[in-house]
Amino acid sequence: MKSIVLFGAGNVATHLFRAISNTPKFRVVQVFNHKPENLLLFKSIVETTSNIEKVVPADIYLIAVKDDAISNIVEGLNFQGALVVHTAGAVPLDILKNLDRTGIFYPLQTFSKIKPVDFENIPICLEASNEEDMLILEELAGSISNKFFRIDSAQRKSLHVAAVFVSNFVNYLYSEGEAICTANNIPFEILHPLILETAVKVKELSPGEAQTGPAKRNDTKVIQAHLDMLGGNQKEIYSLLTKSIQHLHGKEL
Amino acid sequence: MKSIVLFGAGNVATHLFRAISNTPKFRVVQVFNHKPENLLLFKSIVETTSNIEKVVPADIYLIAVKDDAISNIVEGLNFQGALVVHTAGAVPLDILKNLDRTGIFYPLQTFSKIKPVDFENIPICLEASNEEDMLILEELAGSISNKFFRIDSAQRKSLHVAAVFVSNFVNYLYSEGEAICTANNIPFEILHPLILETAVKVKELSPGEAQTGPAKRNDTKVIQAHLDMLGGNQKEIYSLLTKSIQHLHGKEL
Repeated sequence: MKSIVLFGAGNVATHLFRAISNTPKFRVVQVFNHKPENLLLFKSIVETTSNIEKVVPADIYLIAVKDDAISNIVEGLNFQGALVVHTAGAVPLDILKNLDRTGIFYPLQTFSKIKPVDFENIPICLEASNEEDMLILEELAGSISNKFFRIDSAQRKSLHVAAVFVSNFVNYLYSEGEAICTANNIPFEILHPLILETAVKVKELSPGEAQTGPAKRNDTKVIQAHLDMLGGNQKEIYSLLTKSIQHLHGKEL
Repeated sequence: MKSIVLFGAGNVATHLFRAISNTPKFRVVQVFNHKPENLLLFKSIVETTSNIEKVVPADIYLIAVKDDAISNIVEGLNFQGALVVHTAGAVPLDILKNLDRTGIFYPLQTFSKIKPVDFENIPICLEASNEEDMLILEELAGSISNKFFRIDSAQRKSLHVAAVFVSNFVNYLYSEGEAICTANNIPFEILHPLILETAVKVKELSPGEAQTGPAKRNDTKVIQAHLDMLGGNQKEIYSLLTKSIQHLHGKEL
């Protein structure tokens, strides 16, 4: 059994805590967060602390805090040979460079505290400063998920940008869709099957093959009618993405 | 049993044909397309024609062609009292205004010919020029799907714009994500669970609540690092959508 101190009490930390609690070979022995009020959810089930000097020794220090806060935690700790791992997609392994045993454990998923996620299907991107520690991370990853990949820091940086496009930006487009529905007394629910089908489709077809719509068909009448209905930000987004689709699919002809 | 002549041989027409073939109360008696080569798939299972004058009488003329081609078909036909219905999200009922019995049967979904879709879960938006014909369309819709809605032409126009945002534009963002992966030797497959979870999430949370990512967190360091990695079109999209998210969520604070 390997012991883990978990740093953070946000979405990623909360979901990791739940997932690790169900594994036989790893155990979270303490949760650290600099704000005691954020530890309330954990207090009854695990030891917690907001004092960095009271962090207990452990096999793995798993740092799942805001990207900007990683350095502060690393500087405040006495590591006593622990494997120190962070979960940030956009932060390179370098940030831990003064330590002997370091790694990255990046679950590539979007988390909201209130919605449960099934960790089994979340791909975990791993990196470690030596092969022995990589094997430990693979064991941890394999015990909560059935998909893990060795992804180096440069690749992970690119992957994080790609994730912003396919998740954060996509979700924003859902917001725009909802806003248009609400403004016209249409239940947003009517768009759910379309949203789901669009997502499921790219498991079988590449997004290039799956593209449909007025921009792909170069249906200028519909495009103009849509632009005439939109204003401000929505119009700007419609215009840029339509041009982008036309450009991509024009090149392919 | 009501007879249907189906106009069109594209994605929507093909999927409608398959779905209607499984209903007991409606039957496609003929498929029309102006290009005979597009009718090859249908030829062995149903009567087909490319000559508008050879279109047979039927209870319903279901026009599932490119938006621009609807007028041509309507002008070329002798209707003999049929209910004339088109499937275009962006075309108002007005386009059929010289006819007595008209309607709209708009399945709100994205179709690719090679990927089967489950019509049962596709919402169908209905409009008709009289209540009696609305009941016929509700019967047809109800026999291939369990979700149908009365949506007037103005609402449907807005809904179509919303669908472009949550499907066509979303799919384009998937393309960008795939392009970034490919350029960095990362399997696009690694993003599938994230894509699916992002889509599933907005069934339970509104997209506003579900928003995550550097723009939402106003994580300027990560945003700048991402912008530095991107060029051209990708940079322009990243920049516009980040500003849009910051604007939306800034307003809410």
